[in-house]
Amino acid sequence: MDDETMAEFLADLASPAPAPGGGAAAALQAALGAALVSMVCNLTIGKPRYAEHEATMLSALIEADKARAEALALANADARAFAAVSDAYKLPKGTEDERAERSRAIQAALGTAAEVPLHTAAVAAAVVGLCAAIVDGANVNVLSDVGVAAASARAALDSAAINVRVNTAAMTDAGARERAAAALAEHLASVATADGIVRAVGERIGS
Amino acid sequence: MDDETMAEFLADLASPAPAPGGGAAAALQAALGAALVSMVCNLTIGKPRYAEHEATMLSALIEADKARAEALALANADARAFAAVSDAYKLPKGTEDERAERSRAIQAALGTAAEVPLHTAAVAAAVVGLCAAIVDGANVNVLSDVGVAAASARAALDSAAINVRVNTAAMTDAGARERAAAALAEHLASVATADGIVRAVGERIGS
Repeated sequence: MDDETMAEFLADLASPAPAPGGGAAAALQAALGAALVSMVCNLTIGKPRYAEHEATMLSALIEADKARAEALALANADARAFAAVSDAYKLPKGTEDERAERSRAIQAALGTAAEVPLHTAAVAAAVVGLCAAIVDGANVNVLSDVGVAAASARAALDSAAINVRVNTAAMTDAGARERAAAALAEHLASVATADGIVRAVGERIGS
Repeated sequence: MDDETMAEFLADLASPAPAPGGGAAAALQAALGAALVSMVCNLTIGKPRYAEHEATMLSALIEADKARAEALALANADARAFAAVSDAYKLPKGTEDERAERSRAIQAALGTAAEVPLHTAAVAAAVVGLCAAIVDGANVNVLSDVGVAAASARAALDSAAINVRVNTAAMTDAGARERAAAALAEHLASVATADGIVRAVGERIGS
């Protein structure tokens, strides 16, 4: 994916190959949100009118740049994790020992595959937090971009939640399943915050 | 943008240049959704178990491929429309004639700039419609991707709505403003449909 143009990546996503798929798309939704937060910070920093928000914007810019890099890495990691699950399901299951080994390999791969969208959800929640931190002090000319960033991060949260559940549904370790569900629920608290930002931006633009 | 990798495009989005911005991001959210619909169709078509849904999938695939191409074109068109608005605001305003000409140019550019996100909203609504058409007959192995496609198209609708309002807010022609608002409202009816699909997919995965 690193060398592909945008159109090539989208064609890959659309192709009959199951990866890249929804996991990579979720990570890219988070990356789009992070990139827009960076843009808003970049267009607010150094403007005398927004001087009182300078420290907030400088700090948010660093965090947003980091979130974008993490999200891009997660888009790649997801395809690798998916391949590992597929490979595990293809292991031989002729003997008792093979079946036990295959089952162990599947469970390990599912654990890793669930961690990627959990991490995506964490990054998306962080992006929502950055949107909340900058929305009041953002350059009004790019206020709409804060709203789009929040909408994108919200989609990443919804998408990551679906992808976590797909992987945990087949997990046999109830404890691991519950830990993943608890971590996910914590990140999903940001959905309401994201919706509030989208609404607030819409109202300020209309007024 | 056509020759850029995803990382380059995201870096461009994050940069202090105001375009590409939220308009291009909205179009890409729609493109991600369309690409995932294509993937799901591609992984369902030809499978005996889903034979009864073959015609639906074949037709949805054609529409999704078309929607992806349109969304990609809109991401590019948005940057051009934004540049036209910026250029119009920079026109001279020394004389009465110059002011009238500048004002006319700004209004014309705003009209075009509002049309791009309106078109993005239409494409996103079409993607939601495709998700609704395929969700019941989709290969269960990629059911989650239908949910991610709907979440992405939903973000495109929210984002496009913000971008339409940004451009119409400065329009002096009340009739044009109302026509844009009416067209937007029609597309936004798909937000509830998208949310319903995300929820339904989440429930089917958990069960």
